[in-house]
Amino acid sequence: MDLQRINTLIRDIPDFPKPGILFKDIFPLFQDPIAVEMVITHIVNHINTSIPDKVDVIVGLDARGFLFGPLIAMRLGAAFAPVRKAGKLPGGTIQVSYIKEYGTDIFEMQDDSIKPGQNVVVIDDLIATGGSAAGAQELIEKLQGNVLKFIFLIELEFLNGKDALKAPIYSMIKA
Amino acid sequence: MDLQRINTLIRDIPDFPKPGILFKDIFPLFQDPIAVEMVITHIVNHINTSIPDKVDVIVGLDARGFLFGPLIAMRLGAAFAPVRKAGKLPGGTIQVSYIKEYGTDIFEMQDDSIKPGQNVVVIDDLIATGGSAAGAQELIEKLQGNVLKFIFLIELEFLNGKDALKAPIYSMIKA
Repeated sequence: MDLQRINTLIRDIPDFPKPGILFKDIFPLFQDPIAVEMVITHIVNHINTSIPDKVDVIVGLDARGFLFGPLIAMRLGAAFAPVRKAGKLPGGTIQVSYIKEYGTDIFEMQDDSIKPGQNVVVIDDLIATGGSAAGAQELIEKLQGNVLKFIFLIELEFLNGKDALKAPIYSMIKA
Repeated sequence: MDLQRINTLIRDIPDFPKPGILFKDIFPLFQDPIAVEMVITHIVNHINTSIPDKVDVIVGLDARGFLFGPLIAMRLGAAFAPVRKAGKLPGGTIQVSYIKEYGTDIFEMQDDSIKPGQNVVVIDDLIATGGSAAGAQELIEKLQGNVLKFIFLIELEFLNGKDALKAPIYSMIKA
């Protein structure tokens, strides 16, 4: 797979959303449908070759995890379930607070979005400190799902986000 | 296509997000990957049979438009471009204010996400009063894109949202 092509479509934006942060903008990737196809095929192939069990649910984090999650779920014949900030999901929900760079925030899932014992893979565009992925992990555990793997397009390795997670992680691009 | 299957997967949640609103929850649909496949195939078929021109860009609204937009864009070999609330998109952006049920809000697009003259289809899960779709339309016009059609999974017909829009609309389910 042409990782270089994917890399050139991820744009560094300095000082966003605040001074000192080098933001990884993935939207140029979505200007190139063949590159998106390469990313999805690569991730689905990784799941199929590294996870012997059937994946029941792909969990995606609001909002950029929504761009990849349903594409991957459909290729696998799996359900897609969202994690969103508090107050965005209707019906019965469960909550966790998770640690952000400064302070905490609340994440929710719908209480019927994962059934006990289902196998889950979590998808997001990027892992930094791992706070939001750890929040998703806690929600899935509350619903008695098994987190088999976390998958990210980009990993900021120097922040050691994987140390916050109990399941293996896979990232296509390390930065 | 089995519209009834799709209909049973859209859940009415009373009094969300505020008293008196009957919220249409589309997430049960994403528990059923075959139903999602039916929706995407139906929409792509509608685009291919009703729009003679090549569609260059699918525009999706944050956050539920992100669930459908990339799936449709990839089937068409088109780009996907996001509309988000102010402050969420990095790099150069353009803004419009749009009318919500109470008051106004600011939408943004990245200023290089549509090139002048490109053909655009806008996707969202639901049209109510049409305020957010009209905001997307105004952003696309600022970038000199041609909005060929608006596509929604669900249309709340009694709110006449289509009157706010300058291009034809297509909705799979009228409620």
